[in-house]
Amino acid sequence: MKKGLFITFEGIDGCGKTTQLELLKKYLDEKNIGCIKTLEPGAAGLGEKLREILLHYDKPVSDRAETFIFLADRAQHVEFTLKPALNEGKIVLCDRYTDSTICYQGYARGGNIEELKKMNEIATEGLKPDLTFVFDLPPESAQKRVGKIKDRLEKEDIGFHKKLQKGYLEIAKFEPERVKIINADDSIENIHKKVLEQICGLL
Amino acid sequence: MKKGLFITFEGIDGCGKTTQLELLKKYLDEKNIGCIKTLEPGAAGLGEKLREILLHYDKPVSDRAETFIFLADRAQHVEFTLKPALNEGKIVLCDRYTDSTICYQGYARGGNIEELKKMNEIATEGLKPDLTFVFDLPPESAQKRVGKIKDRLEKEDIGFHKKLQKGYLEIAKFEPERVKIINADDSIENIHKKVLEQICGLL
Repeated sequence: MKKGLFITFEGIDGCGKTTQLELLKKYLDEKNIGCIKTLEPGAAGLGEKLREILLHYDKPVSDRAETFIFLADRAQHVEFTLKPALNEGKIVLCDRYTDSTICYQGYARGGNIEELKKMNEIATEGLKPDLTFVFDLPPESAQKRVGKIKDRLEKEDIGFHKKLQKGYLEIAKFEPERVKIINADDSIENIHKKVLEQICGLL
Repeated sequence: MKKGLFITFEGIDGCGKTTQLELLKKYLDEKNIGCIKTLEPGAAGLGEKLREILLHYDKPVSDRAETFIFLADRAQHVEFTLKPALNEGKIVLCDRYTDSTICYQGYARGGNIEELKKMNEIATEGLKPDLTFVFDLPPESAQKRVGKIKDRLEKEDIGFHKKLQKGYLEIAKFEPERVKIINADDSIENIHKKVLEQICGLL
């Protein structure tokens, strides 16, 4: 069924992935290439309700409960947003996807990575990105960009963000065809150019 | 760690399980036996927010998203309510637990039962009930008891509730030691007596 192109944007908080997603969206819009931008957690509807819990619930949340809420958001997103758009032949730009679960709940929180992979597969019915950008930046620099108002996950300490970074770099090592590391310690314009270089061949 | 006794109450909507749970709670309270009553989905805190979504969200919810929200509720419940109470030596009376997922999301909605079992195990960290009551009643009779104001799951048709009933009976067949079928087509008092007969040996 899938005829579109599925591109995900990953990295630690403050790495600039959302800015780059917006710039690519603008570029594709100007070329009249049909595309949508979306995000996890928190696509319209059920996702927004789950996102509110994930980012702003102010009492303790068990690690396992957190994982399952992310997976619920993903399952809903795949069925009602991602698959329909891809089946229409659109380019889908998605801010965070399965790799975030592996890095946040696996590498950083210490969850069982094989279990998480299996559950990602169930939640997505096997839908994988065609291309994933990981915007890589030292966690110390990324933290400065996040600013003072932080959500529940951004509030985690620097050790947590270092484990996340390590996770992303390992994923890229295992799947070099799909996952492209982009050095994000650079100007917004230069990073945008690197993104365009990577996708030009795919358009 | 676990020193208490974990009893779950299962069955299709309208089977009378909640009434029986209350009666057993009252009986144990009168005998000054330490016990708590709780429920899934929807224990205090995060559970209430998830229950609200599960029972009252009025747009389509993907089957997989529904399953993961139930599992999130369960993971949080096990960690912050069930395990602490059981470790204190209490009797825990729980309205719905893992068997509901197997019956609702598995038998009735057609989800993969082996996958659901595995995910239940992850969500519960292996915590199993010592005893489970299944209150069995023809779905047609149960439907009459539910009344006119129905939640998202109660609104499912009679075929759905028949599959649920079949699921419960099969579970009881596979685990006869843990799962006791109680004929719920009887008076409240008689059913209560049957419940007491089953648990007397365990107290």
